[in-house]
Amino acid sequence: MTADLERERAARAALARTREPGDLWLARSVAEIGAVDLHEHLRSGRHHTGTAAEVAALLADVHPERDLDRARRMGLRFVVPGDDEWPSQVEDLAFAEPGTEGGGAPLGLWARGPRRLDELARSVAVVGSRSATTYGCDVAAEFAAGCAAAGWAVVSGGAVGIDVSAHRGALAGGGHTAAVLACGADKVYPRAHEQLLEHLAAEHVLVSETVPGGAPFKHRFLTRNRIIAALAAGTVVVEAAARSGALNSAGWAARLNRPLLGVPGPVTSASSEGVHALLRSGRATVATSAEDVLDAVAAVGEHHATDRRGPERAGDRLSPRHQRVLEAVPALRPAAADSIARVAGLGAGEVSAALDDLVASDLVVPDGRGWRLARRPGEELPDA
Amino acid sequence: MTADLERERAARAALARTREPGDLWLARSVAEIGAVDLHEHLRSGRHHTGTAAEVAALLADVHPERDLDRARRMGLRFVVPGDDEWPSQVEDLAFAEPGTEGGGAPLGLWARGPRRLDELARSVAVVGSRSATTYGCDVAAEFAAGCAAAGWAVVSGGAVGIDVSAHRGALAGGGHTAAVLACGADKVYPRAHEQLLEHLAAEHVLVSETVPGGAPFKHRFLTRNRIIAALAAGTVVVEAAARSGALNSAGWAARLNRPLLGVPGPVTSASSEGVHALLRSGRATVATSAEDVLDAVAAVGEHHATDRRGPERAGDRLSPRHQRVLEAVPALRPAAADSIARVAGLGAGEVSAALDDLVASDLVVPDGRGWRLARRPGEELPDA
Repeated sequence: MTADLERERAARAALARTREPGDLWLARSVAEIGAVDLHEHLRSGRHHTGTAAEVAALLADVHPERDLDRARRMGLRFVVPGDDEWPSQVEDLAFAEPGTEGGGAPLGLWARGPRRLDELARSVAVVGSRSATTYGCDVAAEFAAGCAAAGWAVVSGGAVGIDVSAHRGALAGGGHTAAVLACGADKVYPRAHEQLLEHLAAEHVLVSETVPGGAPFKHRFLTRNRIIAALAAGTVVVEAAARSGALNSAGWAARLNRPLLGVPGPVTSASSEGVHALLRSGRATVATSAEDVLDAVAAVGEHHATDRRGPERAGDRLSPRHQRVLEAVPALRPAAADSIARVAGLGAGEVSAALDDLVASDLVVPDGRGWRLARRPGEELPDA
Repeated sequence: MTADLERERAARAALARTREPGDLWLARSVAEIGAVDLHEHLRSGRHHTGTAAEVAALLADVHPERDLDRARRMGLRFVVPGDDEWPSQVEDLAFAEPGTEGGGAPLGLWARGPRRLDELARSVAVVGSRSATTYGCDVAAEFAAGCAAAGWAVVSGGAVGIDVSAHRGALAGGGHTAAVLACGADKVYPRAHEQLLEHLAAEHVLVSETVPGGAPFKHRFLTRNRIIAALAAGTVVVEAAARSGALNSAGWAARLNRPLLGVPGPVTSASSEGVHALLRSGRATVATSAEDVLDAVAAVGEHHATDRRGPERAGDRLSPRHQRVLEAVPALRPAAADSIARVAGLGAGEVSAALDDLVASDLVVPDGRGWRLARRPGEELPDA
């Protein structure tokens, strides 16, 4: 098992070296045939064409065990599916509509620091403009402190402006905070935040999809934003001008169907224009305090919501993958797993794991040699 | 006809003297049997009980013709249904849920100033706290100027803070503005705004439901708020603390099913707390500019909306009364007007007038001796 996991890690590390973060070809190929098989297939010396040929050519010069070893000596680890600390919520990216910058689940995440990445399942992303106002920075720090004090980690991007205020606020609130970087997790960017980021590496955690040593290219900020949104249970945009990059994070949160909140500000402030546009569009809800954010992200019952709209329905809080599987399960006549997988357009392994979870949640019941929807008291049957 | 109208005016002026603005007994009695008949009935010397007895006793000392004469000499007029300038949109109040302060359509409106009240069909209410910030006052003036410049009148309450900034902004925008007062329209309150309010009386218009000479009692501010909301096509709340009276106006706009907008502000500002609560609750939408307000209030096609949600359906923009009648009209088999009136729970006269309007709007068609819903291309029949 451990040997399998290390083969998986090496295959993913090797493949990740050949393409940029957010590469859809790679994400989809790995989802389809698995990282180990894909890696072996591309290293087989067989004739490849197109992207496969490019990747195969690059793989010839990649030595993942050596890379992983060197990274380990620098205090970095490459966290992959199968690791205890793997934050599996990022896999929802496989089912979120990609952006122009790419998308898909990351092959793995580089981490530097003592805190486990799976802790971030209980985290809030606090993001916003680099050109923030003192109002925005104060609010970001205040919100982050409130979330941190309530036991929620704060995820942000380590940038100047809102990001750094969020990290500092979380620390001031006595909580945990993680910075997701566009450069390699061995580096710090921006340099002005060296002290803060090295403190996070020492006491908390730095995260990156970019290979160690990688520079913070513009493209990597955009693909990084999707990791921030996918790690956190919800995203709050504190300040964002009309075309701010923070709106890119907001877009990912929305496409992941995660709670998205916006902090209002003066309508006379250009730094709030983008947030107000999000609020007007109905994609984000108004957040006036950390309490509002926690209300939105907390699971039902975990935190009392003061003003929810409409009753919650079974399935509302499932991951996109689980929802997709659930929708493929018939209401009356049980279907076999491979038939459900075909309807859902997913792999048999994924579907089988999701069905187990859905059975555990009483949403699906095993019946004969297949599965069908559980019937709930008073609930009408879907079209049979 | 003119004699009839003057009898109506005198009856309404007399009745209005006996009860406070927003009195539901009076509003409902007038709606049921008409002002002239109610007045005659109460003056008949017959034995009355309860509220009717109280009103009858008070009527003995009321001399409406003399009151109207004296008011006319002071430059006041009592505008009632049947007058060309009657702003009939306030009659929607008869179908809005009352508040603890009362409700119902006003019996008439006292006006002082050269502008006709029916011009206010094309108006926006700009309201907010008396204890406003300079931010709020600036925004109120800016929004009001924008609405005024676009040809929309600005209605507000003449109070310090947001109200006076809205009136001044409308004037600065070269437009029309009306103040609805809690005291009689012959008086000015607050005294600090004497100059502004007298200017409105000279060039625009002061409006009040309170009888001439009436003092600005606390209760009258609340019933006054419903007149502001009912006169205007939509209401924008610029600043309001958590328990601000401005939220009372907002509540009326919501119950009238008129567009309600809120201007966001810093979450650190107590003066924006009430507005943010409105926005969070979904009752108000975000307004960041006069343009947003005009988008919300303008009739379809009159002003291009940049971001509407969902397609508009026939009937969406009807008054509550017309909607109620429309809902009572059967889809297939035509029904007689008196049957529709019974289903709608409205008077035969009101229903007959509403049916004429609905026929003119192609929503209802006459069929034999009755009325049925018009069928629209591609639209499914309601339950037949």
